[in-house]
Amino acid sequence: MLRHLLRDNKSKILMLIMDGLGDIRTAEQPRTPLELARTPNLDTLATEGICGRSMPISIGVTPGSGPAHFALFGYDPLEPQNDVGRGVLEVSGTGFHLEPGDVAIRGNFATMDADGILTDRRAGRIPHEEGVRLCGVLSEAIGEIEGVKVIVMPVREYRFGVVLRGEGLSPEVEETDPQLTGQRPLAPMPRTADAERTAKIIGSFVERANTVLAQEKKANTVLMRGISSRPHVEPFTERYGLKAAAVASYPLYRGVAKLCGMHLVDTGFSVREEFETVRKVWGDEYDFYFVHVKKTDSYGEDGNVEGKKKVIEEVDHELPILLDLSPDVVIVTGDHSTPCPMKLHSWHPVPFMLRSAVCGSDATSGFSEIECDRGTLGVFHATSIMELALANAGRLKKHGA
Amino acid sequence: MLRHLLRDNKSKILMLIMDGLGDIRTAEQPRTPLELARTPNLDTLATEGICGRSMPISIGVTPGSGPAHFALFGYDPLEPQNDVGRGVLEVSGTGFHLEPGDVAIRGNFATMDADGILTDRRAGRIPHEEGVRLCGVLSEAIGEIEGVKVIVMPVREYRFGVVLRGEGLSPEVEETDPQLTGQRPLAPMPRTADAERTAKIIGSFVERANTVLAQEKKANTVLMRGISSRPHVEPFTERYGLKAAAVASYPLYRGVAKLCGMHLVDTGFSVREEFETVRKVWGDEYDFYFVHVKKTDSYGEDGNVEGKKKVIEEVDHELPILLDLSPDVVIVTGDHSTPCPMKLHSWHPVPFMLRSAVCGSDATSGFSEIECDRGTLGVFHATSIMELALANAGRLKKHGA
Repeated sequence: MLRHLLRDNKSKILMLIMDGLGDIRTAEQPRTPLELARTPNLDTLATEGICGRSMPISIGVTPGSGPAHFALFGYDPLEPQNDVGRGVLEVSGTGFHLEPGDVAIRGNFATMDADGILTDRRAGRIPHEEGVRLCGVLSEAIGEIEGVKVIVMPVREYRFGVVLRGEGLSPEVEETDPQLTGQRPLAPMPRTADAERTAKIIGSFVERANTVLAQEKKANTVLMRGISSRPHVEPFTERYGLKAAAVASYPLYRGVAKLCGMHLVDTGFSVREEFETVRKVWGDEYDFYFVHVKKTDSYGEDGNVEGKKKVIEEVDHELPILLDLSPDVVIVTGDHSTPCPMKLHSWHPVPFMLRSAVCGSDATSGFSEIECDRGTLGVFHATSIMELALANAGRLKKHGA
Repeated sequence: MLRHLLRDNKSKILMLIMDGLGDIRTAEQPRTPLELARTPNLDTLATEGICGRSMPISIGVTPGSGPAHFALFGYDPLEPQNDVGRGVLEVSGTGFHLEPGDVAIRGNFATMDADGILTDRRAGRIPHEEGVRLCGVLSEAIGEIEGVKVIVMPVREYRFGVVLRGEGLSPEVEETDPQLTGQRPLAPMPRTADAERTAKIIGSFVERANTVLAQEKKANTVLMRGISSRPHVEPFTERYGLKAAAVASYPLYRGVAKLCGMHLVDTGFSVREEFETVRKVWGDEYDFYFVHVKKTDSYGEDGNVEGKKKVIEEVDHELPILLDLSPDVVIVTGDHSTPCPMKLHSWHPVPFMLRSAVCGSDATSGFSEIECDRGTLGVFHATSIMELALANAGRLKKHGA
């Protein structure tokens, strides 16, 4: 919509996302992990910058991680073309480039007994190396089904991706995962007439996988989930004129970034490793850096206040690695809230801050939910973050005379 | 949209706009001009009233003055019919009533050398009297071209307006201003087949003007800019049931007000003269008074903090002239921000206040950016201001039972 206002320059934007950052005060938890954490660097940044509460979708609506990240990147998660299947996210997250028409599937390695009854939907969470080996076994045995190319790729541990590539495929096929053990895997059912052939191919894939894996000790079957096709997502370069790098270690976030046209950078898992990765790729190649820290969300889902607090402190401690790069615009926020008292994603708007030379400043003097409530940005839609970032980077012209 | 809720009464609404009022704190400018200014009257008004931050278009989007004023008057500046060309604004600002189908052009008197090369795009910024005289010369010589009526009118100094009135005209013609000296003026190029005749008429106008002005010392050619037609803008009376008066001395603001159906009142330029003009026309004839102070913006664009501060203090000092009229609703805000550190229009939301007998009050105890951050209105779209004004004026009925 604002493409006619875009203007290019040399400025750099850094967006640091602490997943599930937002939290809530309750009688049992009178201060949030962000309030409890000692965060001198984040507090200085908030004092120098402007704050607010970012709302991923709308008041009262709790987002999944996919929609929440699409919103951060300025794509309305309620628009149908931004409703992306898990198969597509999982496969894209490996860096695989899906073509329009491909069908992407998220697979689980699983175990079943001699009667075909599921005994473990995750094959005892086999280690990553074992998953990689089994993907190799499947790839070698199944290269093509009925003229459709079959590509199998490891994702993480018991999870893998399958891409079907060929003419006339459709993603309108039901999952085979019954979501419970003690049952047989479901047959892949077509939801439309168009999808009958694809369903048959997926059925053949499962059959052949069962044959190939019959002698394996740790996993002897597969479950097919999140069967989906790549939607049209306008690439970041076209939408914003930004060359973007994604430093994220988890597949789903890499998947969203890849779909938005960001370059996926290889990185280690720890906060320090991720920040060092940013430092290594800092330069003329990119204008926008998306950095994703996962563990705030994981601890939130465990209800582990101390763990969540410590990750925030770790981010604060390592923050100078990023700030020393002197990005023109720094954004620190989360994709959604994951309050420890709830152990779930929630709808609560997320603490947000932005600092640039022209951001102005407000009454906030620290980074927390309650400080951000006093910020000049108020409660605002996360889908506006990119426009605000571009404005602060001097990358938007005036609208009208 | 809310026309079915409108209710008439005798209440009066006063909207005082300080152009480019909003500003930002930076390390070098730790307090904004509005914070620095001594403003006892505005502070009292803010304390008695309610405050917030008004957003002209959307987060991060910097508006031009035209779109920003349309937003203040409740017209969405992103809707195509409210995207008004500069020719239309300039001509309307003189008080001229454009008819649908008219083509309006913003003209510059300019100078060229014997070879037809531009030497000054503004003819040395000739004085207003000289511009008026030259418009008279052109009017006398060129009354009609190919059956199309040609109306020439002075605007200010080197700027004038041209209206073409006749059948089958189109505004889809490119400007003749090359934007640089040392070049020839451009030929007026049609953008569509429909516009070929209009382009030819504009070309003839320029040729005939060159002949007529050949012996003039200070300006011997003209540049044709902002070629445009009057869009359909629903008049204020129909939209809000308000008879509106505009007290503004600059052409562009007069132009927007005229297009919205306001009556343009003749006024002097100083703050005191403008406020005295309001006093003179105060009465049964009008329900709504738009008062526009320009210099806050001009000083902002110069980066002149002291100048901007002094204009705000001047407004504060003269404010009793307006308050003594006892308007039922008083609004004080800006159309956009023009931060001194940026010397440009910006996207930052604008300090806003409203006082009426039923507005309620909030925690604000003065009028500044940071006080308005604490206001009960939060950050809100400027296009909502008119509804809020009507509600406070008792001019909106309840929606539904």
